[in-house]
Amino acid sequence: MPDSPSSPVTRIARHTREAIYVREANLVDDLIGKLTFTEMIYFQLMGRRPTAAQTRILDAVLVTLMEHGLTPSVIATRMVYDSCPEAIQAAVAAGLLAVGSTFVGTMEGCAALIEEIRAAPEGEAARARAIAERHRGAKLPLPGFGHPLHKPDDPRSPRLLQLAEDAGLAGNHIRALRALAAQVDSVYGRHITINATGAVAALLGEIEIPPAVMRGIAVVSRSAGLVGHIREEQLDPAARHMWRLIDEQLPYRADPAE
Amino acid sequence: MPDSPSSPVTRIARHTREAIYVREANLVDDLIGKLTFTEMIYFQLMGRRPTAAQTRILDAVLVTLMEHGLTPSVIATRMVYDSCPEAIQAAVAAGLLAVGSTFVGTMEGCAALIEEIRAAPEGEAARARAIAERHRGAKLPLPGFGHPLHKPDDPRSPRLLQLAEDAGLAGNHIRALRALAAQVDSVYGRHITINATGAVAALLGEIEIPPAVMRGIAVVSRSAGLVGHIREEQLDPAARHMWRLIDEQLPYRADPAE
Amino acid sequence: MPDSPSSPVTRIARHTREAIYVREANLVDDLIGKLTFTEMIYFQLMGRRPTAAQTRILDAVLVTLMEHGLTPSVIATRMVYDSCPEAIQAAVAAGLLAVGSTFVGTMEGCAALIEEIRAAPEGEAARARAIAERHRGAKLPLPGFGHPLHKPDDPRSPRLLQLAEDAGLAGNHIRALRALAAQVDSVYGRHITINATGAVAALLGEIEIPPAVMRGIAVVSRSAGLVGHIREEQLDPAARHMWRLIDEQLPYRADPAE
Amino acid sequence: MPDSPSSPVTRIARHTREAIYVREANLVDDLIGKLTFTEMIYFQLMGRRPTAAQTRILDAVLVTLMEHGLTPSVIATRMVYDSCPEAIQAAVAAGLLAVGSTFVGTMEGCAALIEEIRAAPEGEAARARAIAERHRGAKLPLPGFGHPLHKPDDPRSPRLLQLAEDAGLAGNHIRALRALAAQVDSVYGRHITINATGAVAALLGEIEIPPAVMRGIAVVSRSAGLVGHIREEQLDPAARHMWRLIDEQLPYRADPAE
Repeated sequence: MPDSPSSPVTRIARHTREAIYVREANLVDDLIGKLTFTEMIYFQLMGRRPTAAQTRILDAVLVTLMEHGLTPSVIATRMVYDSCPEAIQAAVAAGLLAVGSTFVGTMEGCAALIEEIRAAPEGEAARARAIAERHRGAKLPLPGFGHPLHKPDDPRSPRLLQLAEDAGLAGNHIRALRALAAQVDSVYGRHITINATGAVAALLGEIEIPPAVMRGIAVVSRSAGLVGHIREEQLDPAARHMWRLIDEQLPYRADPAE
Repeated sequence: MPDSPSSPVTRIARHTREAIYVREANLVDDLIGKLTFTEMIYFQLMGRRPTAAQTRILDAVLVTLMEHGLTPSVIATRMVYDSCPEAIQAAVAAGLLAVGSTFVGTMEGCAALIEEIRAAPEGEAARARAIAERHRGAKLPLPGFGHPLHKPDDPRSPRLLQLAEDAGLAGNHIRALRALAAQVDSVYGRHITINATGAVAALLGEIEIPPAVMRGIAVVSRSAGLVGHIREEQLDPAARHMWRLIDEQLPYRADPAE
Repeated sequence: MPDSPSSPVTRIARHTREAIYVREANLVDDLIGKLTFTEMIYFQLMGRRPTAAQTRILDAVLVTLMEHGLTPSVIATRMVYDSCPEAIQAAVAAGLLAVGSTFVGTMEGCAALIEEIRAAPEGEAARARAIAERHRGAKLPLPGFGHPLHKPDDPRSPRLLQLAEDAGLAGNHIRALRALAAQVDSVYGRHITINATGAVAALLGEIEIPPAVMRGIAVVSRSAGLVGHIREEQLDPAARHMWRLIDEQLPYRADPAE
Repeated sequence: MPDSPSSPVTRIARHTREAIYVREANLVDDLIGKLTFTEMIYFQLMGRRPTAAQTRILDAVLVTLMEHGLTPSVIATRMVYDSCPEAIQAAVAAGLLAVGSTFVGTMEGCAALIEEIRAAPEGEAARARAIAERHRGAKLPLPGFGHPLHKPDDPRSPRLLQLAEDAGLAGNHIRALRALAAQVDSVYGRHITINATGAVAALLGEIEIPPAVMRGIAVVSRSAGLVGHIREEQLDPAARHMWRLIDEQLPYRADPAE
């Protein structure tokens, strides 16, 4: 009997008095001390153990996305930590709420373009060119390309792509992304870097993470980054200084409407 | 010149046009492809690379805490995912808000008892006995001990403690926890299990994670667990069924006060 | 000199040692004890005091959206409260994260349709018919119409529309919504109710709340609803029972892929 | 049969196909258009309609707590809004997470002192003096007293206390707070202002809001304040400027430990 919507199940975990099972593996006998955290993340998400190459790529992605200084996400976390130090999970949650469409969400947009190129019956180069022209014509931002700070290239992207190519994965997603990058430079008439979220979209595609949950990988990585900032806030508090900077340097002006 | 409260700094990350540095390591050259995610978590949090033994223990802790079925945290995540599928970071954040004092927070309480035992001038056994008697006398819950489901023993704890002992760490925190466990059984007159948060408190102490940020390790691990549940909700939705169960089986009754 | 993007300001509040000003009104002299909470909400959001009719409508909307039983939002709040009772703001935040696109977000979609009808050069009825046909043809959900439980009519909608008509507002948004409702019944060949979010979209339009921030009104109202559920959880705990229901009645099944 | 823990109920709301009931009142017939939002908040929370005096005081409290400029809470909201503009509930949630122990939580601490004074068998003045001496001796912060900015007096407090006295409430909580204030000035040898959270604690006590849920009133009020800041961010974006201020003016320094 198929699982109808009226009788859903969970396939992730069950427990008895003596044991906990995650996807049929015994947590104590088969997972603790046997899998790295990265392998366990893949196992929890995908229902199967990763290969060594998949683990290597997932590690690289998780290391890449953890930290980029005093970002909006970090600022939100530090504001909440200072206001509620007894519940550090709330500070992490506040920062994770900033892992949204503006920055990280471009990963999914880039993954969709990669899928579109890979599925194009007319060939990858032709579709890549069409995508570049379509975005340029409509003055749309091209997800996965460009970086406000890192020029001419986001240093993370070539490293990530090289790692994936060296790891011996199929390489279809990376090839599609490189095809797009070539057409982007041609159509826009200047070099536009593949940024880190673009490279990550290709790498997560290579290791079979579905686009609909790619942002979750960023969320896990960022959660660790934010815990690091909470620890720094415990040792060297900066939140009050941040607040003072904003309070003093962002002036009030009377609303002309009143 | 010392850093006064009026001139705080960050010691975590900086960036230039060409590079990103995390704690003076070049992200691209020194970290991506060189460190596992677990090593990077330790590096981000502690400002130094972990030893192989520390990495092994941190991996074991992160694997242990990720998943325990349809917990309140998972239920919160699934409710929010169903209501707002376009922002999965919000669903993860909602679940993380449940990583609070009731369940995971006992880790910090147990770490404090371990510290108390280790620092006791009268000897560890004497202080362990005093702690057990103090909690029993005041009918206080003993953080890190007991489990509503897993009896007689939480299966995760012996595995975790054994792993740490095999890893060749100093063992001071584990010895203090074992001393407490022995006195607890004696004072209460029955066996009370060291639970997973108790064992984790000892292990994180062994690898020098400060108690004030231990909960953050659980938050990182749980964030990955919650992403797995979001993926399951995408494939096999259960949130509406959970809602219906509660709506149908938790009856309304008129308030006697009205 | 115009405010350039590089020199932003705030127009909401400022403070001195002796006073706090909100949009040039003295909080102590002009607002506390002078404005109701509802009037203050409008003042904070819009930068001007509401008329009596606007206040009456905003009150009706805020009363309407507060409570609808054990919804996903309430379930999330109760799960987090039970896990972290010392930080009730976290429990409210978790529940508010469920005020997303699935349920409340249809308000904005309906507001967009109302705007489209009002701006149509070919006349409101013609555009309303085109909208109904467009949604029916594409089998798209029609935001603001239909309700899974309340049939044939969502009881809140006629009451809200009547209140707004009685309040002496211009009525343009309500007229457009009623025009759409008439065409919907005609095009679909059956009566489909205007639901509460549809009526609220029209009412908030009447009192000049911009669609981009309409969801915020629901958030404020729901926050009060959730505090009520936290209070009930303090007096008559139900979260553990909800958890048990789900744990017992949502079965585990092994993943066929493993 | 009493409600055992194993058969919990909800007393808040129920619904049929035709109607929604909140605490036995018909939402459509009895509440929408009949109660103000403030009256509905009290009804939802307390299970009974407020008196006119109670409504007046609750309005004053809700108006008072809504807005105080670019606070940590507002900064968190603006950071998240800029990163995820499609889900404004997430931005509000992030800001509410900052309604924690550091600032607003002192309300509950002050309410506990008021309760202690009111219940003291030796008389209110004696207990108030003992409390002041106890806090001064232990160098503990005195919840509800002092303000970093507003000196010599928080302007909100005398206004709130006066309003409550004029409203004809019993006045027991206010009398206890005033008794404490008198002893504080005497014991500390200087005037220390009753701050807004102190006055609010007394007012909410007067209208019978239990201390365990007082913070929820602040959460509701702040949620409206935060929606106002989201609207300003839509019209006059400032989040990027805040980010730039912090990124530029909070310097990186190498960790001496590395």
